Amino acid sequence: MAIGIYDSGIGGLTVYKAVAAHFGRRDLIYFGDVARVPYGNRSPETIVKYSLECGRFLKDRYGISALIVACNTISSYALPALEDDLRIPVLGVIKPGAQNAVALTKNKKIGVLGTHGTVNSKSYVAAVKAVDSTVSVYQQACPLFVPLVEEAMLAGPIPETVVRETVKDIAKTGIDTLILGCTHYPVLKPLIAANMPGVSIVDSTEYIINDIEKLRLPPEQGLREILITDDTSSFLLLKNLLVGNIPVEVVTL
Amino acid sequence: MAIGIYDSGIGGLTVYKAVAAHFGRRDLIYFGDVARVPYGNRSPETIVKYSLECGRFLKDRYGISALIVACNTISSYALPALEDDLRIPVLGVIKPGAQNAVALTKNKKIGVLGTHGTVNSKSYVAAVKAVDSTVSVYQQACPLFVPLVEEAMLAGPIPETVVRETVKDIAKTGIDTLILGCTHYPVLKPLIAANMPGVSIVDSTEYIINDIEKLRLPPEQGLREILITDDTSSFLLLKNLLVGNIPVEVVTL
Repeated sequence: MAIGIYDSGIGGLTVYKAVAAHFGRRDLIYFGDVARVPYGNRSPETIVKYSLECGRFLKDRYGISALIVACNTISSYALPALEDDLRIPVLGVIKPGAQNAVALTKNKKIGVLGTHGTVNSKSYVAAVKAVDSTVSVYQQACPLFVPLVEEAMLAGPIPETVVRETVKDIAKTGIDTLILGCTHYPVLKPLIAANMPGVSIVDSTEYIINDIEKLRLPPEQGLREILITDDTSSFLLLKNLLVGNIPVEVVTL
Repeated sequence: MAIGIYDSGIGGLTVYKAVAAHFGRRDLIYFGDVARVPYGNRSPETIVKYSLECGRFLKDRYGISALIVACNTISSYALPALEDDLRIPVLGVIKPGAQNAVALTKNKKIGVLGTHGTVNSKSYVAAVKAVDSTVSVYQQACPLFVPLVEEAMLAGPIPETVVRETVKDIAKTGIDTLILGCTHYPVLKPLIAANMPGVSIVDSTEYIINDIEKLRLPPEQGLREILITDDTSSFLLLKNLLVGNIPVEVVTL
């Protein structure tokens, strides 16, 4: 009864890496729907449809005991549909990220960076307000950050300019805490931090580990597998960079 | 018997616009597979599979007389498969772009900007050499140009830096002619030209009009329709910018 970790592409490997480091004896199957990445600009209906296809594939093949949705866009739109359909615990990244940020902020001003889909869904605004309704939330869509990471463009004038120009408005709002509301963004954390002096930068991975521990699942063998829906060189490049030589299988939905 | 104009997303609208302006009495159906854009980083097998699904949809629904593949990545990989399967004339953008460039170059050094898929396929290299084997061809992959155009980021520090840094190496090769090897790129032509002084910049649309005329199809009503596989705000924004108020229908494959 493995745990499935699902993302539209490669970004969720930042979550996979953190979960695998913490849970050595748990079977962890990563599923990256790279044939249809990116989800961030797609309509909510399409995101739900794709999510159910991927979730059912993992349940049918592995009988997974839980599904971690390691993608903010999917977490924003598809968690209820996935829980209804799969009838197993489905953990998203929005709630743990919001909890982490509320615990850290002192001036009660929190920023969120995300894709168009995540920002438009206002999921983080709702999740932060659910923990503490007195907190102000400022959002910024960062549509070029995913292409930068997918291309492994992590240093030099292009990523420096894109990050600086994208975060310059939210840097002026006076936030003291910033949520990286997309699983790709931790890879750009050094550049983001350089443009946000004095701001605490949080991602969701620490808190999702708490959520997994609460499931109290029995120990397993420590199986590691990565499934992708298309065989692209940029996925393999970044996969090796992030998690090393875990075997990769290409599957057709 | 309309003509289908097919692209993975919005880029092919630059071709649609040019063809529609020239052929007022022809029925033109645009098909943008925006639910699965971008194709540029996908494997050749996936590109062929998606292309056949879209081409069959157009043939089944409209009995199209010809298909224009208004996308360099698809033109690089899927033309033979589409012709075999649909049994109608299938016109790509590679050959007309190459012919145009060879006609213009004086020093026999031609550059090509394209997606990873187009550059890796070496389709332009082969197409240029087929016209004149003594021409040297220099290629540059520009993976961030499509996201820039899809986001309508056409001015300011981000597109200026991305374009300048991406073309700086190919600008040093001494080319006198540059092929915009992706149908999105004409939208960035002013920025590209500013970084390539003295270089003739060509796109494929002029020459594809010649190819369509050679088909000698009977006149029609001048029907204009746009089909897309997902309803995204960025498509509609750019659609209005490029071709105005042509009706859009969302279809499911």
